[in-house]
Amino acid sequence: MIPIRILSDDDIKVILDIRNTIACVEKAYILKANNQARLFPLISEDLSEGKADMDIKSGVLYSDDTFGLKLVAWFGDNIKEGLPSLTGLAMIFDLKTGFPKAIINASHLTAMRTGAAGAIGIKYLAKHDSKALVVTGTGTQAVFQIAAAISVMPLLKKVYIYHPLRYQSAEKFQSTIKEKLGTIKIDIEGDPMNYIWIQKLDSIDFIAVDRIEKALNETEVVITVTPSQKPYIFHNWIRPGTHFSCIGADMPGKQEIDEKIFDAAKVFVDDIHQASSVGETQNSIKSGIINEKHLIEIGRLLNGDTYGRTSEKDITIFDSTGIALQDLAVSNYIIKKAEELKIGTTVYF
Amino acid sequence: MIPIRILSDDDIKVILDIRNTIACVEKAYILKANNQARLFPLISEDLSEGKADMDIKSGVLYSDDTFGLKLVAWFGDNIKEGLPSLTGLAMIFDLKTGFPKAIINASHLTAMRTGAAGAIGIKYLAKHDSKALVVTGTGTQAVFQIAAAISVMPLLKKVYIYHPLRYQSAEKFQSTIKEKLGTIKIDIEGDPMNYIWIQKLDSIDFIAVDRIEKALNETEVVITVTPSQKPYIFHNWIRPGTHFSCIGADMPGKQEIDEKIFDAAKVFVDDIHQASSVGETQNSIKSGIINEKHLIEIGRLLNGDTYGRTSEKDITIFDSTGIALQDLAVSNYIIKKAEELKIGTTVYF
Repeated sequence: MIPIRILSDDDIKVILDIRNTIACVEKAYILKANNQARLFPLISEDLSEGKADMDIKSGVLYSDDTFGLKLVAWFGDNIKEGLPSLTGLAMIFDLKTGFPKAIINASHLTAMRTGAAGAIGIKYLAKHDSKALVVTGTGTQAVFQIAAAISVMPLLKKVYIYHPLRYQSAEKFQSTIKEKLGTIKIDIEGDPMNYIWIQKLDSIDFIAVDRIEKALNETEVVITVTPSQKPYIFHNWIRPGTHFSCIGADMPGKQEIDEKIFDAAKVFVDDIHQASSVGETQNSIKSGIINEKHLIEIGRLLNGDTYGRTSEKDITIFDSTGIALQDLAVSNYIIKKAEELKIGTTVYF
Repeated sequence: MIPIRILSDDDIKVILDIRNTIACVEKAYILKANNQARLFPLISEDLSEGKADMDIKSGVLYSDDTFGLKLVAWFGDNIKEGLPSLTGLAMIFDLKTGFPKAIINASHLTAMRTGAAGAIGIKYLAKHDSKALVVTGTGTQAVFQIAAAISVMPLLKKVYIYHPLRYQSAEKFQSTIKEKLGTIKIDIEGDPMNYIWIQKLDSIDFIAVDRIEKALNETEVVITVTPSQKPYIFHNWIRPGTHFSCIGADMPGKQEIDEKIFDAAKVFVDDIHQASSVGETQNSIKSGIINEKHLIEIGRLLNGDTYGRTSEKDITIFDSTGIALQDLAVSNYIIKKAEELKIGTTVYF
């Protein structure tokens, strides 16, 4: 009988903090660039057109003796029943024996590793003295993007919130965001009560905006995280020096920013094939503005193979569609911590 | 918190019997033929060349409100450590909400549903008065193929065992097969002690053979279930009327029977695309002996869309590579029985 650790979303919330999640995701990107990790083909399937879909992301982290997968399902109508629209499970296996090691609820895991991806784009590509951030979208993932961005923007003072369709959603988000951020574990070393984090949040203004042009004029860091299928940020609105972390576009047909922005930008992606086919990048590739040769996998920047921003005026983009290696690296960290802290349920298979 | 039922291999052994497994797999084939079920792309990846690989099979059974996947890993060196070389997990989700319903150890599940597939080929394509069977291969799956075949061959008296490389393996298999078969649940209705099954086994002779030509001359039903990469059954050895259930070939490069046998045969498969690319069928397609148009999905036979054997002399082949819908249909049955019998562990996610 094989022991398998089962970890619920509540278990993950106890274990996982932003700082370590970012470190795990950076490691995943670097391992990929160094060929110490490999993605398997993405499975992405409609279950009920426009109402439900699911994807399976899988891969192997050779250096961590781990392989596995994550299935995430989106069921739009769940909201009407008061149920979460996103659910999923990750299964983590031992590369020495093929035996399963853990089964992990993928909700908080996905939220945290996706937030980490956006922040890594900012940490390595945005100007280091940026004091303001624009976030588009007011869903759950926007909260995690902001939490992770704050942790990598030491001078941050203003966060502009924009909803491309409803200003009211941005206003409502503004009124609740501090409380939501307060519940996310940041793990500033030596601060077990998240005290410094709460203090830091108090020093930041969150401002709902009805026209994004104005906010873009006052900031150089943008995170896009809506399910939009047409652009709502145009190239003539962009200040020199702006960085984009593009998170929302992760399926064919999705788009948040004008494809012309790619023309003059340095474009980094988590995975070239996936970004070109389902990420924000798909649109500029389809219109022939750039081709795959313009894309650099961010792991090559993190491991020092290439450089990122070289001037105050560079436009930079990090297009993250989310890859299995993020899930595997973070899951491995979760499993180690769960063993240490004796968290989770062990079942025998 | 979502309740998920966790079912170990021991749980499955209590729940699952051959008769109901065959019924579930027949249903899966029919649903596929009727477009009430759909396979997602197969993921099949090497983890360490020649030593370890894994595949992920996934799909949806619309009529059963179920979707899900199974990951199975093969680690050849495990045997040296006294560990099983095959392990895996199935994850079953509710198509109404996307929530996970159960996580199932895939070992016994896979063994049983694969045995059922071979038997379905025999049940619908072999001559009904067949008294003898040849089984090639002496691994675990050979045991399940024999168990399931016995349940669909009422007149069976002789089972010839052949190993293409080592006669000693066939001899050893012969000496232990009755005991192994005795532990498999057949579920002849009203026979809770498997008494009739044990009696039936006593009436069958198991005979190791060193030359398969002789055995082929005395039987019309063949199950191939080795990992061979070259043919060891040749077309000029085949009697008219012979049926083949081809089980072993499930990866590129595998082959058990001479591709020329396909020339005059009626060929049924579980999935046309999968059989042509990784099944026994791949070899006859590659050599141009047949093309995909010659292949009929077995679900179309089971639902009455087409016919199978039309004469005593037909050569028939069922090439089964194993599809996710078998796992989903059998898993659904397992989950229902587990609820009824209160078997398994429930964890809250």
